[in-house]
Amino acid sequence: MISVSVNGYGTIGKRVADALSKHPDIKLVGISKFTPDADARIAAAKGISIFASKENHDAFVKFGVSPAGSVEEMVDASEIVIDASPDKKGIKNKEEVYMRKNKRAVFQGGEKDNIAEISFNARSNFNSAKNKNYVRVVSCNTTGLCRIIKPILENRDDLEKISVSLVRRGADPNDSKGSALNSIEWESNSHHAHDIQTVLGSIPIKTTAFKAPQTLMHVHSISIKFRGAAPSKQDIENIYSKESRVALLRNASSTSDIIEKARDLGFARNDIFLVNLHANTIISDGNELSMVITVPQESIVVPENVDAIISMVDLMDQKRSMELTEKILGLGNIKSRLEAAFA
Amino acid sequence: MISVSVNGYGTIGKRVADALSKHPDIKLVGISKFTPDADARIAAAKGISIFASKENHDAFVKFGVSPAGSVEEMVDASEIVIDASPDKKGIKNKEEVYMRKNKRAVFQGGEKDNIAEISFNARSNFNSAKNKNYVRVVSCNTTGLCRIIKPILENRDDLEKISVSLVRRGADPNDSKGSALNSIEWESNSHHAHDIQTVLGSIPIKTTAFKAPQTLMHVHSISIKFRGAAPSKQDIENIYSKESRVALLRNASSTSDIIEKARDLGFARNDIFLVNLHANTIISDGNELSMVITVPQESIVVPENVDAIISMVDLMDQKRSMELTEKILGLGNIKSRLEAAFA
Amino acid sequence: MISVSVNGYGTIGKRVADALSKHPDIKLVGISKFTPDADARIAAAKGISIFASKENHDAFVKFGVSPAGSVEEMVDASEIVIDASPDKKGIKNKEEVYMRKNKRAVFQGGEKDNIAEISFNARSNFNSAKNKNYVRVVSCNTTGLCRIIKPILENRDDLEKISVSLVRRGADPNDSKGSALNSIEWESNSHHAHDIQTVLGSIPIKTTAFKAPQTLMHVHSISIKFRGAAPSKQDIENIYSKESRVALLRNASSTSDIIEKARDLGFARNDIFLVNLHANTIISDGNELSMVITVPQESIVVPENVDAIISMVDLMDQKRSMELTEKILGLGNIKSRLEAAFA
Amino acid sequence: MISVSVNGYGTIGKRVADALSKHPDIKLVGISKFTPDADARIAAAKGISIFASKENHDAFVKFGVSPAGSVEEMVDASEIVIDASPDKKGIKNKEEVYMRKNKRAVFQGGEKDNIAEISFNARSNFNSAKNKNYVRVVSCNTTGLCRIIKPILENRDDLEKISVSLVRRGADPNDSKGSALNSIEWESNSHHAHDIQTVLGSIPIKTTAFKAPQTLMHVHSISIKFRGAAPSKQDIENIYSKESRVALLRNASSTSDIIEKARDLGFARNDIFLVNLHANTIISDGNELSMVITVPQESIVVPENVDAIISMVDLMDQKRSMELTEKILGLGNIKSRLEAAFA
Repeated sequence: MISVSVNGYGTIGKRVADALSKHPDIKLVGISKFTPDADARIAAAKGISIFASKENHDAFVKFGVSPAGSVEEMVDASEIVIDASPDKKGIKNKEEVYMRKNKRAVFQGGEKDNIAEISFNARSNFNSAKNKNYVRVVSCNTTGLCRIIKPILENRDDLEKISVSLVRRGADPNDSKGSALNSIEWESNSHHAHDIQTVLGSIPIKTTAFKAPQTLMHVHSISIKFRGAAPSKQDIENIYSKESRVALLRNASSTSDIIEKARDLGFARNDIFLVNLHANTIISDGNELSMVITVPQESIVVPENVDAIISMVDLMDQKRSMELTEKILGLGNIKSRLEAAFA
Repeated sequence: MISVSVNGYGTIGKRVADALSKHPDIKLVGISKFTPDADARIAAAKGISIFASKENHDAFVKFGVSPAGSVEEMVDASEIVIDASPDKKGIKNKEEVYMRKNKRAVFQGGEKDNIAEISFNARSNFNSAKNKNYVRVVSCNTTGLCRIIKPILENRDDLEKISVSLVRRGADPNDSKGSALNSIEWESNSHHAHDIQTVLGSIPIKTTAFKAPQTLMHVHSISIKFRGAAPSKQDIENIYSKESRVALLRNASSTSDIIEKARDLGFARNDIFLVNLHANTIISDGNELSMVITVPQESIVVPENVDAIISMVDLMDQKRSMELTEKILGLGNIKSRLEAAFA
Repeated sequence: MISVSVNGYGTIGKRVADALSKHPDIKLVGISKFTPDADARIAAAKGISIFASKENHDAFVKFGVSPAGSVEEMVDASEIVIDASPDKKGIKNKEEVYMRKNKRAVFQGGEKDNIAEISFNARSNFNSAKNKNYVRVVSCNTTGLCRIIKPILENRDDLEKISVSLVRRGADPNDSKGSALNSIEWESNSHHAHDIQTVLGSIPIKTTAFKAPQTLMHVHSISIKFRGAAPSKQDIENIYSKESRVALLRNASSTSDIIEKARDLGFARNDIFLVNLHANTIISDGNELSMVITVPQESIVVPENVDAIISMVDLMDQKRSMELTEKILGLGNIKSRLEAAFA
Repeated sequence: MISVSVNGYGTIGKRVADALSKHPDIKLVGISKFTPDADARIAAAKGISIFASKENHDAFVKFGVSPAGSVEEMVDASEIVIDASPDKKGIKNKEEVYMRKNKRAVFQGGEKDNIAEISFNARSNFNSAKNKNYVRVVSCNTTGLCRIIKPILENRDDLEKISVSLVRRGADPNDSKGSALNSIEWESNSHHAHDIQTVLGSIPIKTTAFKAPQTLMHVHSISIKFRGAAPSKQDIENIYSKESRVALLRNASSTSDIIEKARDLGFARNDIFLVNLHANTIISDGNELSMVITVPQESIVVPENVDAIISMVDLMDQKRSMELTEKILGLGNIKSRLEAAFA
C-alpha cells in the first residue's frame, strides 16, 4: 500500500481524494484544508482524515470538525503527496515542505513545468514518471489535447502543423471571483502549445485561447495538417474508438447539453473524466483534419493523478494501471453510456 | 397499481417519470417524446417505454429508439396522465385528448389555475385533490413558498402581511433560448401572490419578481408581518425542523455553493427536491420576521406530482403518502446530509 | 435625392436610419415600427417619420406617437427600401410587398443569399450592386471577414486555405430571449464560409462557429495558409493601415475592454462600425498567417447599407461613396481615436 | 478657482475628472494613474494632466504618455483631492499622504464611514460638508436610496419601517475579476442599511442584498411602511417629479432596456447619473408603499462628488450648487429625454 495524502481540497483535490480512497493499492492518509467549511464537513462525513495547519486547529475543533493532525504530520505520514493547492502555491510547498522532508510529490498543471522532473499524461508518457520524485500532471486542456494528439502521432509520422482554438470556461462553477461577466478575452500564441510540448516533445503546434463567461467545459477546435492526405473520418473514428479515455459523441452541440446528460445518467458530480471527441464535427479535407473536442475541466486530470502515483512507484505497467484507474472511476461505464446517449 | 403515464419529457417530466418508476403502488406506462434525441435514448436505456406521435413513429425507429406505441395509446393505457408538456400546452391536451378519452390528469404550474379543479401542494392541501379528475401542481416558486407559509399559518392566526422578493433563475441549465444574457428584469405585483392564494386561500401577500441570468436556483427574500410579536429565530427553527420538505441550512450564501455541495454529496442530477431555508438569514425584529429561501426549480415539484396522484385515487392519507414519496426519492437522506454539510 | 425608407427598426434598422438621415443625397422617408414602444418615442423625438400597419394605427395614436401613414404608404413613397426586419421575414416582404409594388430593396445577412441578385460588401464588390433591384448586405461576421480577406486577395494570388474560428456573441445586449445562459454551443463547417463566398467567390475557406453567453462583440481567430511564405507582420500592418474600415489595435485583449474605451471616447451608442484587427495577435510563421479580429455586430453593416444604396443608383464610384459614408458616420475619427487609445 | 485633483482613474475617477473639467469654479489639476494603459492615453488625448508614482515615471514615458509630475506633486498642487482609489485604499492615502500634507479630501463609499467627518449626499445633507476636511460620498446604492428616501422624510413624519431588497450588479462592465458567473449570492441584513443611516440618521431600515451576474445596473425593491395611510401613487409621482436627480420612468422593465435607450439617446458613456424610479411599479396599499428603482452604479455618485467640493469650500448654497452640477453634466436633458422615451 502506497501512503498518499492530498494537500489542498478544492476542485481537483476533492476528486483525487475520492479516487485514491477507492484504489486497492493506495492508502489515503488524508487531506489538508485551510478553512473549516462545508467541504470539511463533507470530507469528514465520508470518513476522510482532515489535517489543518496548527494555527487553524482550534478553529476546526470549534467548527465541529476535529483535525487528525497538522499538515506537517500529514506529509510526514505520506510516501507521496498530491499537491492540489491553488495555482503557483505548489512551488512554495515543494521548497518549504516536500524537499525538506524528503517527500515525493505530484503537482498540477497550474504550476510551471520546471517544478517537476517530468510533465505527465498517462496515455502519452506513463513510463517517464517511473522513479521520479517530482511529477507534474499537465492541466485539463493539455491533458485533453494529449489524449487526442498522441494517437495521431502513433499512426502518422507526417504531421505538419496542429492549430487549436480553445474556448475556455471563464471560471469553475462555484468560483466566486469568477471572470469578466460579459466579455470574451483572447490570447494568441497561448501557453498551451508549450505545455503540450512538455509531454509530447517538440511537435509543431500553435494555440489561440479565448475565455468565455461559462462554467461547464472547455471547448477546442482542432485542425491538423498532414504532409500526405489526412486520415478519413472513418479512420479517425477507428483510432479513437480504441481509446479508453476518449468518448466519441455524435449529436451533442453544446456544453450544457453534455452536462445535462451527465446529470441524467447519474454520473457522480456530473463528472465525465474523458475528453469528448465530437464525431459530427470531424472533417477530413485534403491534407487537413479538423474536429471539435470538449474538456471537462474539473475531472479530466483525476485519473492522471492516480496513474502518476502508480508510475512513480513502478507498481504496474501502463496498461494495467490505466485499466485499474478506469475501473475504480467507472470510466468504462461513463464512456459507454455517454456514447450511447449521443449515438 | 395505478397506471400513470408522463406526457412530455423535459425538465419536470423526466424527473417525475423516474420517481413514478420507483413507487410501489404506481405502474409507469411510459412517457411521450416529440423529438427523437439523446433524452429518448437515455429513457430507453432505463427501460422506460417511449410513446411518440404517429407522424414521428418512423423518425424514432430510424433513430434507433422504437416507440412502444402512439401517444394516444399511452393515454388509453393510463388511469392518470401527468401532463408535463411545455407551458400553456396542457390546456390543449386537456381539451383535445384527456377530456375526450375521459382520463384524469395532473397539470403543472405553468398552466392557468382554472385548468384544474384544484391547485395542489402536498403539505398544504393534500386532501383537496381526493377524487378530483384534474389537479394542478403549482409551480416551483409557489411550491417553495407554500411549504414555508403553511406551517406559519398553522402556528399563528395574526399574520398581517407577507412580502416576497423573488430573484428568479433566468432559464434552466440546458435551455438554449435562455433569457437576456446581461440584464435584470423585474415585475412588481407578480403573479406568484395570486398563485399562492390558489392553494392557501386569500392570505395577504404581495410578490415582486426579478429575473437574473443564472440557471441554478430561485432565491426569495421573505418578510412576514404579524399583528403580535414575530416568532423568535429559535421558534422558526423549531417549526421548520419538523418539516420533511424543508432543509434548514446555515452558512450557505449562494446558489452555486449549494449546488456544488449537492454534487459533492452525490445527489442524483444534483437534485434537492426540498426548499432550503437559510437559518443564518432569519431575522425576528419586533412584529416582523424575515428570511431567505432557495428553490431548486427543476426538482421541487417532483414529490408533489407523486402525492397528487395518491390523493386523487385516495390510496393513503397525507402523512403516509408524503412519507412514502420522500422515501422513494431519498429525501430524508438528502435533507440530513445537506443540513449536516451546512450545519 | 434618393428616397429611402427603413422597414424594421431594431438593432440594424435604427442605426441605418440615423446614417441615412445624415446623408446629403438621401432623403429618409421614414421607418416602420410594429409595436408602439420607447423606440418609437425616441424615433419621433428625432423627427423621424414613423409608419405603422393599418391595424396598429390606433394603438400608436393612443400611445402618443402618431404614424405618418401606413407601411404600404411608406414603401410607395420610397425608391429603395432597406429591409431590416427580423431574420427570414425579408423574403415575405419581398414577395408580398416590394415585388408587387415594383420597389427596389436592400436586405440583411439574416436572409438567404438567393433573396437578392448579389450579396454585397462595399470594400469587396461595390460595383456589382449597380443597377440591381435586390441587394443583400452580408451579415456582420461576413462583413468583417470580407474587409480582412479582400485586401489579402488583392496582394497575393497564392492563398491556399483560410480557417476561421468564430466565437460569436450569444445575443444582442437587449435581446430578452437571449441564448443559453451558461453554455458554449458549436457548429463545425458553419454557414459563414459559404456566405463569404457569395461575396468573394470560391475562395478556399472553412469556418467553425462557437456561441458564447456574451453580448458585446464577435471575436474571430483567422488562420491563412499561403503556398509561398506568409506576409510578415509588418506587411500585414502596412496593408491594413490603408483600409479605412479596419482599425489596427494593439494591447486590447477583451471585448469589454474595447467597448469600455468606445464609451470613454464618446462614440454614439458605443458604435465602432469598423472591424478591429488586433495587431498584437498577428503571427507570421512560415507559410501561415494568423490573427484575431473583433466584429461589432450591431454597427458594422451600417456603412454597407448606405453604400449599397449609392451603388444601386450608380450615384458615385466606390471610392467617393465609401468616403462620404465614412464621413457622415465619423469613421475616420472613430478609427484614429480608437487606434490611439490602443496604440 | 478651487484646485482639485483626482487620485485614481477607474470607473468613478474618470467620470469625476470629466465633470470637474467642465465646472466653472474648479480647476482640475490632473489625475493619477498607476499603470500606463489605454485609459492613460485617452486621458492624455483629452488634455488631462497625468501624474504617476516616481517609480513608474519611466514606464509612462516609454509608453508615450509623459507624466506631468509625481502623485505627491499632484496632491501638493491641490486644495482638495478626490480619492477614487480602489476600495479600502483611501484610508492608506489619507494617513500616509493627505494628513501629512494637510490636504482636504473626498472619499468614496467603498471606504468605511469613519474615514471622514461626514458621509455625504447632496440632496440629503449638503450643508453638513461645509468646512469639513474629510468628506465621504456614500456608495452608489446608498446614494440612490438617499435620493428616494429623503423626500419621503420631508413629507411624512410617520415612517414606520423601510425594507429594501437590492439585486446588485455582479461587477462593472470591464471588470476582469468579475463575480461568480452562474450564481446568485445573498446577504441578509446587508451593510446598506447602516450606510444610509450615516446620511439620514437613525431611520428604521433593513436591507437584504443579492448579487447577480449582470453588469448594467443595480435594481432595488423598496417597501415603506407608514403608521398612517401610505401616500397614493399620484402623491409619489408628484413628490418625485420635483426631484432633479430622480427620473420617473414608465414601461421600462429591465436594466438592459434602459441602457439600450441611454445608448440610443446618445448619453455620453451611456451614463444616466440619476436614480430611476419606475412609476409602473409604484403600489400604494393600505399603510404600505412599494416601488422598484434602478441605480446606474458607474455614474450616480459623480454629481455628489462635485457638490461635496462646493459644500466643503462653502462656495454656493445647496440649490445653486446642485443646479450648476446638473447643468454641466446635462442632467436636465438626460432626465427629460429618458422620461420621454419611457413615458
